Amino acid sequence: MPSAFETDTAVQRMSAGCYEANVADRWHVGPVPNGGYLLAIVVRALAQELPHPDPFAVSAHFLRPAQPGRALVEVEAVRTGRALSTGMGRLLQGEREHLRVLAAFGDFATLTGPTRVTGTPPALPPPEECVRGRAQAAGGVVVEMARRFDTRWPPGTPGWAHGGPSGVAEEALWLRFADEHPVDTLALVQIADALPPPVMELGVLGWVPTIELTVHVRARPAPGWLRCVARTRFLQEGYLEEDVEVWDTRDMLVAQSRQLARLTLQR
Amino acid sequence: MPSAFETDTAVQRMSAGCYEANVADRWHVGPVPNGGYLLAIVVRALAQELPHPDPFAVSAHFLRPAQPGRALVEVEAVRTGRALSTGMGRLLQGEREHLRVLAAFGDFATLTGPTRVTGTPPALPPPEECVRGRAQAAGGVVVEMARRFDTRWPPGTPGWAHGGPSGVAEEALWLRFADEHPVDTLALVQIADALPPPVMELGVLGWVPTIELTVHVRARPAPGWLRCVARTRFLQEGYLEEDVEVWDTRDMLVAQSRQLARLTLQR
Repeated sequence: MPSAFETDTAVQRMSAGCYEANVADRWHVGPVPNGGYLLAIVVRALAQELPHPDPFAVSAHFLRPAQPGRALVEVEAVRTGRALSTGMGRLLQGEREHLRVLAAFGDFATLTGPTRVTGTPPALPPPEECVRGRAQAAGGVVVEMARRFDTRWPPGTPGWAHGGPSGVAEEALWLRFADEHPVDTLALVQIADALPPPVMELGVLGWVPTIELTVHVRARPAPGWLRCVARTRFLQEGYLEEDVEVWDTRDMLVAQSRQLARLTLQR
Repeated sequence: MPSAFETDTAVQRMSAGCYEANVADRWHVGPVPNGGYLLAIVVRALAQELPHPDPFAVSAHFLRPAQPGRALVEVEAVRTGRALSTGMGRLLQGEREHLRVLAAFGDFATLTGPTRVTGTPPALPPPEECVRGRAQAAGGVVVEMARRFDTRWPPGTPGWAHGGPSGVAEEALWLRFADEHPVDTLALVQIADALPPPVMELGVLGWVPTIELTVHVRARPAPGWLRCVARTRFLQEGYLEEDVEVWDTRDMLVAQSRQLARLTLQR
């Protein structure tokens, strides 16, 4: 049986470089579909158009919110090489473009270079000692997307859901799909934008729409729980970065992302 | 008098969305022009096409090395909004595309949102107690681009130029243009790709061509020295990220960048 993620990011080829998709209503944050979810639809179309299977580097610029319903994805193979291929994709509804994407694809099965790692995964109590995440953000916003995931938070976190914001814009948690479907390299692109904004730990209430999101997928994830860490260090005049790392059960970094977002205060 | 950077990134409008540029030979790393330099040419063309002055988020996918000489830059205004505008740019030589770019522009003079910062600038001895950087990389590669900058390194660093690699893929240094021309938000885009690859501190010799580079410009820099820190934490099967922060004399983060690069061993 296909997973919710596979079903809701499916694309159908209409003609050369043109795909049809249906934006579902199961990945909303408040009233609009999550940007990483829209991005995954575009990346799936690119994966069909390009010869390499894994998105290595995906850069997305978000232009305006989308709506549930029919969407077109236009893709262009920009360059096809031996190790890497690069494509561009656009998501359109009616005449309006919502998202433009550049992506480099490769094949993790073929890599042979050296490995030297100094980063370490976040320290977390085991999932069974953690607390299940809820489908609500600070300020009472309903996050339908959160129901697609099983997240487990260290007891007492996030602060904004347990008495008060911690004052440090950082969070770490376990994550898997609610339907326990394995996470592939394409799903990692969505997951990089699926966490609650860590800036909520600063006690600021508002929307944090993504302007630009880049995801580097660094390995195919092993089956089982993922560990995610997200952090904002620089909120400057309303603009902020969100850095995310995703680790698998082998203690391997499988994705690293950064987005630039704009905080729009609720009051 | 225009600076070397301004002269060498100048673009001339030929027709709607089409600019001509001349790729100089003063920004080479080994035999080819630096990617961040090429990117700055494209960003300058985008700055002329879009209504906002400052590049906020620039995402570049590098397709193949360029050569000195004539280049065309094709730009498209993708969306023009009140706070932000988004464009796409391509750099071509002959029939070949070398670089494709998405960029969101804004205006730092108009920002009014909240500021909360936990990151701190790198600790460095004053520039006069530091050592001037040289135009040579590990393995003897000539870096002509390095002559465009005045860099000052803490004594004994980088390790690969002073007896042996440190074993930690990290570096911190002072930087300004060699002609002491002030750095604007456009020049920050180039500077984010102008540092020696920190991976050289691991004692691996080779090329580190950029696949994807995203630069977030976070403020207009104050005049004077910049401090830069660059770090690689994950070299995995030959692929690595390079994270760069650039700070100004006010202790303000002015740019943050990450690139995905591929290490091609020399032996």
